[in-house]
Amino acid sequence: MNNTRINLLARPIGNPTPECWDIEEVDTPDLQENQVLVQVQYLSIDPAMRGWMNEGKSYVRPVRIGEVMRALGAGIVIDSKHPDFKAGDAVTGITGVQQYAVLDGKDLVKVDPNFVPLPAYLGTLGMSGLTAYFGLLDTGQPKSGETVVVSGAAGAVGSVVGQIAKIKGCTVVGIAGGEEKCKYVVEELGFDACVDYKAGNLRGQLKEVCANGIDVYFDNVGGEILDTVLTLINMKARIVICGAISQYNAIQKPAGPSNYMSLLVNRARMEGIVVFDNAANYGKAIKEMAGWVAQGKLNAKVEIAEGGIRAFQDTLMKLFKGENTGKLVLKVA
Amino acid sequence: MNNTRINLLARPIGNPTPECWDIEEVDTPDLQENQVLVQVQYLSIDPAMRGWMNEGKSYVRPVRIGEVMRALGAGIVIDSKHPDFKAGDAVTGITGVQQYAVLDGKDLVKVDPNFVPLPAYLGTLGMSGLTAYFGLLDTGQPKSGETVVVSGAAGAVGSVVGQIAKIKGCTVVGIAGGEEKCKYVVEELGFDACVDYKAGNLRGQLKEVCANGIDVYFDNVGGEILDTVLTLINMKARIVICGAISQYNAIQKPAGPSNYMSLLVNRARMEGIVVFDNAANYGKAIKEMAGWVAQGKLNAKVEIAEGGIRAFQDTLMKLFKGENTGKLVLKVA
Repeated sequence: MNNTRINLLARPIGNPTPECWDIEEVDTPDLQENQVLVQVQYLSIDPAMRGWMNEGKSYVRPVRIGEVMRALGAGIVIDSKHPDFKAGDAVTGITGVQQYAVLDGKDLVKVDPNFVPLPAYLGTLGMSGLTAYFGLLDTGQPKSGETVVVSGAAGAVGSVVGQIAKIKGCTVVGIAGGEEKCKYVVEELGFDACVDYKAGNLRGQLKEVCANGIDVYFDNVGGEILDTVLTLINMKARIVICGAISQYNAIQKPAGPSNYMSLLVNRARMEGIVVFDNAANYGKAIKEMAGWVAQGKLNAKVEIAEGGIRAFQDTLMKLFKGENTGKLVLKVA
Repeated sequence: MNNTRINLLARPIGNPTPECWDIEEVDTPDLQENQVLVQVQYLSIDPAMRGWMNEGKSYVRPVRIGEVMRALGAGIVIDSKHPDFKAGDAVTGITGVQQYAVLDGKDLVKVDPNFVPLPAYLGTLGMSGLTAYFGLLDTGQPKSGETVVVSGAAGAVGSVVGQIAKIKGCTVVGIAGGEEKCKYVVEELGFDACVDYKAGNLRGQLKEVCANGIDVYFDNVGGEILDTVLTLINMKARIVICGAISQYNAIQKPAGPSNYMSLLVNRARMEGIVVFDNAANYGKAIKEMAGWVAQGKLNAKVEIAEGGIRAFQDTLMKLFKGENTGKLVLKVA
């Protein structure tokens, strides 16, 4: 099978550029025992990709130079030498940025596209949704009646965080960039309010809609927004550090949250989370979230970028420019 | 009784200066029902004092302009209209920076100077020791065999943190300023190692003595030291934010810990503590610590500054310049 794949050619300084990638056409290898050939239909476009392009220790090893870029994908089985999979099965797994992937069956998860559409398994019922689920519930520990604030509220993780917090009986305030996204967050996702950080005076805006202060802050962006929220937290507040998209392409060392001493004044906690630590409980979480989707309490929509595998670089930059609403996936086939 | 007292005259910008204080001589008022007259013998000189001089919300209200400066003191009862106290009793309480204090009996705690000397009740068996006890054990949650690092290791809180961590079976590394303090921390307090941040290459020094990384970091200083430690923490590390003496006199907004994303990479936690939240458990903690003192496992020494009440400003600056070793108290009478 002729396979177009995108390899990491050079590590970026700042934003990823077209020069970072080597687009290669190769034949797919013959299947070995227990392997499965998957035609990739959708690729998950994630902020974490920027980190995987860097050298140095992180929560997973960096992508090597010359190696196909790491990505979560959803696709259809074309051929299988693994007893659990047959042609036509819908699956998700770390396929990489390519049209066809050969993976060990144990690294694939079978999904049901009749229940929710295939790309939703990369979003609300995929890593983004699981990140939101475990980060909010286990680390944020929101109680009914508390105020939960989430940044990147229109994004893949933030949108699910806010909806789960609503299900748990919290007052939910989003932070997003631009009027249109804020409208989407309130009207489509059901947040109580959403403030536009691009409109200025973020602290004043937040103070107005968080009349009882902030009990849980789920941070996807870092930078000045985190620093501002720190000035508004309540006693015993929980801050979940999930990401820092504002800093991922920074060339200079990012500024730390200079108001971190608010943690002391308020006996508050700031804790980092990585979704992979919860792998043993994915099944239970997906089942609960799928129930919420079925009941219409949780929106499982995704934003689909067209253009095929060669649009990968442009789609990645769309994410970093904040042009997407909700989970962004690239349609490959 | 003629009483010399030191009132806050002006809020400092940067370091406290002699101009911040109004030294006043007044007569002590007649005792009302339930009040006690205390002759102050020792005053606790604390980093927190700098915060109390600022305007604005914190964990306790600011000292008002014209009001006697807040301080914990230890002294002897001279006269009492409270049934629980009589002349000659040794007590501690928030006496303020003055020679004689009139306090409600309910705000005083009786102590036994035959068990440990009176000034120790302002240190190891006082707020400093209690801060160390609850911050390390409840928030840091050190397990036997883990590596605990503490900054301000020669200071009032840090010295007790490290000794308790040793009692709990941890490998304990201090951070202090200067060779002499480091020697004291290892030889007198029994830490496994102590690194001198003034000697440069703090990261390299720490890496060498923390062969298994850092599981618990108890931070008394903030600034660059916190930022450096963040690069060396282990998975699921606990960082206890107890103070930031490096930042208290800063005129500009302090720099935040720019490596805070290490919390995410390592699924680690950073949490602020304030000792007052544990008031209900002080008795139990003091009893346990007193036992350790009796067994010779916990050093209850303090550094006593001479010069009387009028030496308050100089003694406070000694603290901020890091010239003290262990708990610093000012001898008043």
